[in-house]
Amino acid sequence: MKVKLGAKNCLYPMPTTLVGANVNGKPNYITIAHVGIMDHGSISLSMNKAHYTNAGIKENGTFSVNIPSVDMVKETDYCGLVSGKRTDKSQLFEHFYGELKTAPMIRECPINMECRLIQTVDFPRHDVFVGEIVETYCDEQCLTDGIVDLIQVQPILFAMNDRGYWKLGERFARAWSIGKELKDR
Amino acid sequence: MKVKLGAKNCLYPMPTTLVGANVNGKPNYITIAHVGIMDHGSISLSMNKAHYTNAGIKENGTFSVNIPSVDMVKETDYCGLVSGKRTDKSQLFEHFYGELKTAPMIRECPINMECRLIQTVDFPRHDVFVGEIVETYCDEQCLTDGIVDLIQVQPILFAMNDRGYWKLGERFARAWSIGKELKDR
Repeated sequence: MKVKLGAKNCLYPMPTTLVGANVNGKPNYITIAHVGIMDHGSISLSMNKAHYTNAGIKENGTFSVNIPSVDMVKETDYCGLVSGKRTDKSQLFEHFYGELKTAPMIRECPINMECRLIQTVDFPRHDVFVGEIVETYCDEQCLTDGIVDLIQVQPILFAMNDRGYWKLGERFARAWSIGKELKDR
Repeated sequence: MKVKLGAKNCLYPMPTTLVGANVNGKPNYITIAHVGIMDHGSISLSMNKAHYTNAGIKENGTFSVNIPSVDMVKETDYCGLVSGKRTDKSQLFEHFYGELKTAPMIRECPINMECRLIQTVDFPRHDVFVGEIVETYCDEQCLTDGIVDLIQVQPILFAMNDRGYWKLGERFARAWSIGKELKDR
């Protein structure tokens, strides 16, 4: 039987990211899991307008999207608990810059995507920043035959329903493949 | 060591959804995993402009986002393999309508979100449809103490890197909680 939940967002789990931006000349990081894929080359971040990081993204027109591993869950959660307004998070990770020069990336994260802000979609309480990915950096040990290996990355998945962080399970089927059985019927 | 991958989208895994829309008066379904959360009440879908479903979403201004379970992986993949242009998918699932009347939802999916189109963000090859969630329907057995239980839902996670479908693993930490240890240091 179907139960009505009201207008409840159930698009979970989503990948938990650490977004990096320079704010007032210093790296700052914020935890964001309300993300999305806009097209193959671009990513969206939904960021409450009250956040400290938004001004830095607007000022520089750049940001980074870093994928933390399960073993970074404390640091990841911490970045969502404390604001850069009151707490200097610039020394929390080892950072590096890429070709955009102003998007600080987190070396400890297995994957880093360096983004140029191409659009901001305005919502009542959120800036949805859309970034074009300019370069992607991956830890060598997270590549298997040149392909990003999620077993090695160990991403942190987030669900709002239960306010939980989840691990990724096993790969069990191939896309654009397993459904062919029905096609051939 | 970091390896440069070029401008590669690595925001995976994402939840695999079946998007429902009426096209030419009949229910049609398409598999979309390039989704996102725009704010607490709205969802984005990145849909290649070549898809059959786009016209139906534009015409009716409504669509549904259905979360299939792992045991529906064949049907889910199939909906991404064949186009409604050539194949009638209207009988593939049992459907029902909600208050919007024109957004067909899939009874077999444990979660259904009924959406009103509120914005379309134009990308060169994609329509990014933003839907406001109007009502959410959940199978009774997927609720534990009134909360959506992802263990019961068994969502299908998608990664483009390896073109794989993945299962969800275990919950291992609580958000806005586990990071407090660092705060108190």
